[in-house]
Amino acid sequence: MTELKNDLILRALRGETVERPPVWMMRQAGRYLPDYLKLKAKYDFFTRVQTPELATEITLQPIDQVGVDAAIIFSDILVIPQAMGIEVLMEEGKGPSLPAVIKTQRDIDALRIDGVEESLRYVTDALSLTKKELNGRVPLIGFAGAPWTILCYMVEGKGSKTWDKAKQFAYTEPVLAHQLLQKITTITINYLKAQAKAGADVVQVFDSWAGALSPADFKAYAQPYLIQIADALKDEVPVILFPKGTWYAIEDLSYSSASGIGIDWTITPQQARTFAGNRVTLQGNFDPSKLLAPIPEIKKAVREMIDAFGTQRYIANLGHGIMPNVPVDHAKAFVEAVKAYPGPS
Amino acid sequence: MTELKNDLILRALRGETVERPPVWMMRQAGRYLPDYLKLKAKYDFFTRVQTPELATEITLQPIDQVGVDAAIIFSDILVIPQAMGIEVLMEEGKGPSLPAVIKTQRDIDALRIDGVEESLRYVTDALSLTKKELNGRVPLIGFAGAPWTILCYMVEGKGSKTWDKAKQFAYTEPVLAHQLLQKITTITINYLKAQAKAGADVVQVFDSWAGALSPADFKAYAQPYLIQIADALKDEVPVILFPKGTWYAIEDLSYSSASGIGIDWTITPQQARTFAGNRVTLQGNFDPSKLLAPIPEIKKAVREMIDAFGTQRYIANLGHGIMPNVPVDHAKAFVEAVKAYPGPS
Repeated sequence: MTELKNDLILRALRGETVERPPVWMMRQAGRYLPDYLKLKAKYDFFTRVQTPELATEITLQPIDQVGVDAAIIFSDILVIPQAMGIEVLMEEGKGPSLPAVIKTQRDIDALRIDGVEESLRYVTDALSLTKKELNGRVPLIGFAGAPWTILCYMVEGKGSKTWDKAKQFAYTEPVLAHQLLQKITTITINYLKAQAKAGADVVQVFDSWAGALSPADFKAYAQPYLIQIADALKDEVPVILFPKGTWYAIEDLSYSSASGIGIDWTITPQQARTFAGNRVTLQGNFDPSKLLAPIPEIKKAVREMIDAFGTQRYIANLGHGIMPNVPVDHAKAFVEAVKAYPGPS
Repeated sequence: MTELKNDLILRALRGETVERPPVWMMRQAGRYLPDYLKLKAKYDFFTRVQTPELATEITLQPIDQVGVDAAIIFSDILVIPQAMGIEVLMEEGKGPSLPAVIKTQRDIDALRIDGVEESLRYVTDALSLTKKELNGRVPLIGFAGAPWTILCYMVEGKGSKTWDKAKQFAYTEPVLAHQLLQKITTITINYLKAQAKAGADVVQVFDSWAGALSPADFKAYAQPYLIQIADALKDEVPVILFPKGTWYAIEDLSYSSASGIGIDWTITPQQARTFAGNRVTLQGNFDPSKLLAPIPEIKKAVREMIDAFGTQRYIANLGHGIMPNVPVDHAKAFVEAVKAYPGPS
């Protein structure tokens, strides 16, 4: 194993003292980067995801070009439904669609949960190759979608503003919903373990649609599965849970096996700290839209954010993925402002 | 003035003792009601909004058919941009669009803020007619969009998941943004005063996209204008503020002139009470998707909601508008469960 030259994020996740907060950006690989857009013009989405050389190239782009303190593998959360035997289509500009939605016991029984080492070998191959190419420059983050969020897509068949079909399924067929959530959880644990084995130094679980739920429903349909994943991985690799939009869950999750909790921008850093105590590392929570502000405003807002979170047990990040319309120098300004803290960069 | 036979919502808003919580549903007039869909098939959106007889008929439908404790006038928040001189198009199934977006000082200078009594007379006429037709059965609620939410549409020109153009405008042109927000606030105050004069017993201000903002940005771009509106109306009519997605603002707003605060379902009733104290009436917060659950589940969830909020200083409602795909008997079950509380209905 090559020794890491920059292990800031690992130390921050372990609660060790760091010289400054580490910084990375959700969806940093792709979208807004001109070099990514060139590859996008040549290869379709799943070719980019399933070709380790391409996924590696895309994963590395922001390390060199934006200067982040961690790489996150270029992939997609919907590789899990695919590995379970569900067709996933990705039309550029239209978002994903899953023509065969889950409705019945029979649909759930037909889902595969083993063989992930084989079916998702392209991801672990991409991780191994990226790890080699990184040569210890920064840690490598693997990831998966959270069971609730994956259920949302598998039941709705496409994106939704309200996820009301997914919720209706949970409310009317709770036994089936929990069966499905458990199957997704089991395969996700296998998948994340395989990622750790292939070289992921950290794994993040994205519960992007957790915020559609009430606190009571989050506790029923999302939280137990997040905790199960964190428990299963904790001896292999630090886990960051990111249940977007669930400020009310921070306190509970701070007592889980997770090393980090991602938070969005609809909570003040101070309030998040109050909920989290010093039990867990917080990650976030810059409004992605604020990267469209003038650069001096971005830098000022970053300093205010770190002032409020403090420099320890903290990973600077956005509160959601970077948007395609962000100029690269604005993304860089965000990263530079974290690195220059407490001074102006 | 005809005396009100059912003044539950007014007493709840004044903090007086009520026998049971009043109940109504946001967007109760329209969408899911078969009689509304018949009118929708015959008349386009703005004909329905601008013809007092049609607006009255639609407003009254849920009173008779669902049994709610208040009527809310059938209208749209985008009548304000129209009254300011901005074209608003409404294509069925596609949402609103405003072809001439606001970008410059000149655009803002050109906006009208007076003459609302004339330009929106069709709304006040609809209120007067509805008031007459209600004949004191239940109180009548008027409404407007909040300045931030109206700015969102005026700057973006259409709906958005992230409202990043609106936020970019606020971040890069804060002086212009505040000018625009103040103009919207001024005309909205005039408009709501005219509504009160025409017979609205309560007014609600919908800040539907407040939740896109961080707490700091909400305090800068949304909260001051909500407070200004509540202050200006407080001697005329009770005001309910509904800044969706801003759990963190409940405490501050509980000290404002508003009589009620609407909350969505991403907060527990207990936590909302902790933030609000006994200073203000809370309204909400049933997950609209839960109206798709089986009827016994709806009734159980309603009882649990009222158990948690308590019966006083509380208005039972959804946490957002009722969805078009809700069966009418599910909407009725929601209302009946509130009326039957604490017993099963």
